[in-house]
Amino acid sequence: MIPALAAAAKNIKNAAGNNFMKDINNTATQLPRGFSLATARAGFKYKNRDDLALIMGHNPASCAALFTTNLFQAAPITLARNNLAKSAGIRAILVNAGQANACTGDTGIHNCWKTLEILAGLLKINPWDILPASTGVIGDHLKMDLFEKNLPPLARDLGRATGEDAARAIMTTDTFPKTSACEINLGKARVRFWGMAKGAGMICPNMATMLGFLLTDLKIDQKLWQKIVTHAADKSFNAVTIDGDTSTNDCMFALAGGQSEAEISGEYDLKKVVSALDRVCAELAYKIVQDAEGGTKVLRIEVKGAKDDHQAKMAAGAVGNSPLVKTALYGKDPNWGRIVAALGRSGAEFNPQEIRVSLAGVEIFASGCPKDMDRDSVFKPLLEDRDVDIQINLGAGSGSFTLLASDLTEKYIQINAHYRT
Amino acid sequence: MIPALAAAAKNIKNAAGNNFMKDINNTATQLPRGFSLATARAGFKYKNRDDLALIMGHNPASCAALFTTNLFQAAPITLARNNLAKSAGIRAILVNAGQANACTGDTGIHNCWKTLEILAGLLKINPWDILPASTGVIGDHLKMDLFEKNLPPLARDLGRATGEDAARAIMTTDTFPKTSACEINLGKARVRFWGMAKGAGMICPNMATMLGFLLTDLKIDQKLWQKIVTHAADKSFNAVTIDGDTSTNDCMFALAGGQSEAEISGEYDLKKVVSALDRVCAELAYKIVQDAEGGTKVLRIEVKGAKDDHQAKMAAGAVGNSPLVKTALYGKDPNWGRIVAALGRSGAEFNPQEIRVSLAGVEIFASGCPKDMDRDSVFKPLLEDRDVDIQINLGAGSGSFTLLASDLTEKYIQINAHYRT
Repeated sequence: MIPALAAAAKNIKNAAGNNFMKDINNTATQLPRGFSLATARAGFKYKNRDDLALIMGHNPASCAALFTTNLFQAAPITLARNNLAKSAGIRAILVNAGQANACTGDTGIHNCWKTLEILAGLLKINPWDILPASTGVIGDHLKMDLFEKNLPPLARDLGRATGEDAARAIMTTDTFPKTSACEINLGKARVRFWGMAKGAGMICPNMATMLGFLLTDLKIDQKLWQKIVTHAADKSFNAVTIDGDTSTNDCMFALAGGQSEAEISGEYDLKKVVSALDRVCAELAYKIVQDAEGGTKVLRIEVKGAKDDHQAKMAAGAVGNSPLVKTALYGKDPNWGRIVAALGRSGAEFNPQEIRVSLAGVEIFASGCPKDMDRDSVFKPLLEDRDVDIQINLGAGSGSFTLLASDLTEKYIQINAHYRT
Repeated sequence: MIPALAAAAKNIKNAAGNNFMKDINNTATQLPRGFSLATARAGFKYKNRDDLALIMGHNPASCAALFTTNLFQAAPITLARNNLAKSAGIRAILVNAGQANACTGDTGIHNCWKTLEILAGLLKINPWDILPASTGVIGDHLKMDLFEKNLPPLARDLGRATGEDAARAIMTTDTFPKTSACEINLGKARVRFWGMAKGAGMICPNMATMLGFLLTDLKIDQKLWQKIVTHAADKSFNAVTIDGDTSTNDCMFALAGGQSEAEISGEYDLKKVVSALDRVCAELAYKIVQDAEGGTKVLRIEVKGAKDDHQAKMAAGAVGNSPLVKTALYGKDPNWGRIVAALGRSGAEFNPQEIRVSLAGVEIFASGCPKDMDRDSVFKPLLEDRDVDIQINLGAGSGSFTLLASDLTEKYIQINAHYRT
């Protein structure tokens, strides 16, 4: 595996093409072999919908994981880290929506562990082989009576839920369930990849600021798997922003169960696996931005020509998090002035005379001035689309970064001013 | 002056008390002696209101100035810097609202200089003794015909405008004119301080992200004056945030004309001057946040116990710029969870178990958990006020910073989604 890993380090960066294809062609819809799903209607916060989901692997899986970088880490994050260190092979993931179990102290840890113990008893596995994840309101203690009541039917119903059912059960303010799937051939074997995610608010780069769960029936070494998953997340979940906020509960778990018996046997296989995972993650990340709270646009902000990748990320972030840019695009206003003003305060170094900005494929700013054109008539039809490309060349080097961002609307305010009630 | 300057360096930090008094008692309303004002209705963008203002000093003045840190600097910023370097004593300030003259290239510089030449001819002074300032839409060229038509009546009308008239003429999306004034005794002389500012959107720390103009009839050395002005701005205009954006046109000019003949003669005098300027700047900064686009709240975010002042600023900024915190307070929701989540991602270093958060004077979070109380009934009456204090102790050191921030409402979106049209 060591030579394969060395090759991977070189190739993971080069593999995969455009990660932000707007309409990925997914013919695959089946779950990877070796996993079963279940959902239940516990009623933690939402009524008349399922809010508890279980993923069960028939075999112990190679697990790759990514966690929030927020200093406040919710109880399930703490326990998932502990379990990953202790487990010889993850068997299950338990997710609830409506209660975050964050800032809940020792009681929160105790409650979370208790849910794993109950579930482990029902599934006849070790509690440390289960990863917990929670999303919802911060600070309230888990409603343990609802877990006690709903875990037995959840365990009993394994296999009855579809991928879409599970994706729907982990939603909070999401308006639609987010899944993605694809298949590749490795040698004679067919390998499946599937993922689901929830997002909507509190989304900003720095760790998959959302919940994301990836499954595959590939057989793969944990270290290489972690590397591929981290790479895919950096280009997808860590490259989206809705409101610049990040949550205490964000995590992504990727299970590789190995039921296909297929393994990576060379560089070409590796590229295919990397591309497949990139594609699944890119589609999920796009759907998260598409479903941004109150959002009507997906802004694809591509920065090139920065001094380095870090400065490209700063520049893209300043544009993608600027309330003025976001509201302008919501208003279908080709307001290049707000874009360049955001670049100018981003901290990225460049000569204002050297930068070029294109909006929806049309160059709108160069040599320190706006391009001479009838902007309103040129851009009116172009800015009607949901997807708007903002391409920026800083003319200062070869650093690049691409960020997906939502716009900012009255509805975002309405949702977030009254979330708790 | 050297010994006084040395003392100043020590004392400027210690002088002055609470900078963010909600209702500063201004009995002074008169302009400092030696200055005249005029306004005109040019019609750059706004109809039925004045949009051009002139400040004229009877003597050459000591001028302190602060400029935007945005890499894109508007033409008037470039020319004001040049003029300051060349002038032996600033005589006048010319301000227009509606057109920013930013990202307008060489033509923008040429146009701006032309306005100064015309005005200098009318006032019989040097064009380099005039400081220009512009605010409004970025990118369009100045309507020179309107300047040519309106500068002669502007010069002729000097002395006819009040401070409030001038403050009204520099407004863009501001809903009320912002002025502040106070008086102190230095020896037997009475010294007056007066200021006006415009703000509303694109406001974030790092240079007075607004236009601000301060006048005094104090006689003072330029270097000491710059020091006092910079200090006052750091605690006021550089400690407010509305939307995290900063503009290409922000500047603050402070003229000390010397007509009172009063000078600083010792440490006690210096303290009085520093306090007076801090007070004027603090009131103007408060009014800018009070008049935030669509805003209904003024959040006073006081961070203490940070590792250092810089980390305190990062922590306060993360809270004050968080759309989730801003929308929660707009909704009068005591959502401490969003405050601690913002602190956790701010980059400030602390132990989550050690921090304490108070909202509207009531401790709501400590030891990693929310305080046990009936939050809704406790906070319902407290969050009705316009002013809401958020006090944060990070328990990690002695760094501190206080930031004023607005909330985020549907109206901000409406204003900014349709500003150009």
